[in-house]
Amino acid sequence: MKVNLSLNPTEEAQTLNLNQIFDLAIIGSGAAGYSAAIYARRYSLNTIVIGADHGGIITETNLVENYPGFKEISGQELMNRFKEHARRYEAKFLDDSIESISKEDKIYLLKSQGGKIIKAKSVILATGTKRRKLNALGEEKFRNKGVSYCAICDGAFYKDKVVGVVGGGDGAASSAVQLTQYASKVYMFVRSKLRAEPYWQNLLKKEDKIEILTGVEIAEIFGNDKVEGVKLNNGQIIGLNGLFIDIGSVPNSELAKQIGVETNEQGFIVVNKNMETNMPGVYAAGDVTDSLPRFKQVVVSAAQGAIAANSAYHFFKEERIK
Amino acid sequence: MKVNLSLNPTEEAQTLNLNQIFDLAIIGSGAAGYSAAIYARRYSLNTIVIGADHGGIITETNLVENYPGFKEISGQELMNRFKEHARRYEAKFLDDSIESISKEDKIYLLKSQGGKIIKAKSVILATGTKRRKLNALGEEKFRNKGVSYCAICDGAFYKDKVVGVVGGGDGAASSAVQLTQYASKVYMFVRSKLRAEPYWQNLLKKEDKIEILTGVEIAEIFGNDKVEGVKLNNGQIIGLNGLFIDIGSVPNSELAKQIGVETNEQGFIVVNKNMETNMPGVYAAGDVTDSLPRFKQVVVSAAQGAIAANSAYHFFKEERIK
Repeated sequence: MKVNLSLNPTEEAQTLNLNQIFDLAIIGSGAAGYSAAIYARRYSLNTIVIGADHGGIITETNLVENYPGFKEISGQELMNRFKEHARRYEAKFLDDSIESISKEDKIYLLKSQGGKIIKAKSVILATGTKRRKLNALGEEKFRNKGVSYCAICDGAFYKDKVVGVVGGGDGAASSAVQLTQYASKVYMFVRSKLRAEPYWQNLLKKEDKIEILTGVEIAEIFGNDKVEGVKLNNGQIIGLNGLFIDIGSVPNSELAKQIGVETNEQGFIVVNKNMETNMPGVYAAGDVTDSLPRFKQVVVSAAQGAIAANSAYHFFKEERIK
Repeated sequence: MKVNLSLNPTEEAQTLNLNQIFDLAIIGSGAAGYSAAIYARRYSLNTIVIGADHGGIITETNLVENYPGFKEISGQELMNRFKEHARRYEAKFLDDSIESISKEDKIYLLKSQGGKIIKAKSVILATGTKRRKLNALGEEKFRNKGVSYCAICDGAFYKDKVVGVVGGGDGAASSAVQLTQYASKVYMFVRSKLRAEPYWQNLLKKEDKIEILTGVEIAEIFGNDKVEGVKLNNGQIIGLNGLFIDIGSVPNSELAKQIGVETNEQGFIVVNKNMETNMPGVYAAGDVTDSLPRFKQVVVSAAQGAIAANSAYHFFKEERIK
């Protein structure tokens, strides 16, 4: 139910020549991808950014308050600004998602869902993460029928209703606070204990609508056509109309694995401090990397995108010398 | 000749209680320091930022075009925004510079030039860098009499005059372009070859006023009361009124060395990816660190400040458990 606000995709598609071999293909159109594009274009690399999900996961955040320089901005607006910034330096954009990647004679071939082939001499993987599933009984059945992974997308459907949030981190806390705008009551179901930063814990305490249950797990999500309640592992039944699952994320690293880029046990791409992977000419940046597992922040993704572009630039300088 | 635009320092000094022991003292008031303050305050750490040089070295840059989210902003304005952002979360500020640091019973004691003592349980060193000297004959004698390290500060004094820039990196290129606004002629003296990114090289080519001499060094800066010219190592004499030295920077890591924080051969503070130094409770962020020697960027400093604050926060969580 997220609205795609990418700018003039039709106009862009018309002027985009895919017969050329790009210097750099950036896969992913979030903070890391756009920042990489800004830097890569300043380095004069012929650059394309490919992504069907403008802005990535941060666009699900209503209020970003910790990207230095902006006291308050929506994730969507911040990513619009990043994209406009990259556009200023004439980066190319393709509003599509890459399904497979292969290598032929030093050239990477990227095949998109829309049937396009993009050729590039180097690649930055900035593919981000997706929401982790709870794997509870009823979760699939009631998906979009009361089960959601995005409070900012779907919160407004629950005006004066009872909702629950599953999770105990910053994301879950932010969702719970967000949902008090609409819902009459917000339960937080926390498996062990609240891990959210003190800033969020203070806000949670101030909200009378929020009730936090710790040490509980969701055993079942039940209802008829729509969610009507949850059963907890302690046998307790709680009636509610919506359940927001916010228990972290898993990396979108399938493409990385396809071409032999090393990932860690959790599937995050292994990078060094220059954002280099184990493959020459292939870099990674942002949430998909293993560099800071507990700290996924826009400013870090932006820095990593810049660093990856700088590494790609040095790769080309060295290639030219050969 | 730089104007200090720090905001309401008097008002702040009046409300600042230095008898308390702060959770965190951030030494340095540039991008890394302010970003660290934003994050540390969101973590509810009682935080003070100490620095006499609001904004640091980026404030010498007229036009920042590569901090994602701002297409064009002056370094001064960007750092004003960073400081305002930190102020929003009620970080404390002291407009002073730290001269010495020691440790007593797990508490760090910071002594300022103004005679103040600041006590803190943890420290982030975000002390940045200073301009590297050329060590040429006449450099000290003519300092501020034609020799400058900051084109944006002093460029306007050279209207319709001939100036030179020493250096071949992005900084030197940016200075040369900047100086064409005022000077009638701008020489660039480059020791080996131009290393500036293609973006800058293109701009340099377009400027008729700029003449680039490569493979040359400054043997002597000469004149009477003021600079009148330079003698190159090939014997060539070039008459000019101003010489801007832009050959990189050296780390401000004296405080780090005082308390036994490890530095590398060039004096940069050795950090891991969590911005931890070899001393528990002491972190470093920004240009003073060894993490990316060839890539000193505002967005990287901002990210590192955030990461350092996150590490300090985990230090406190673990301390509380003990």
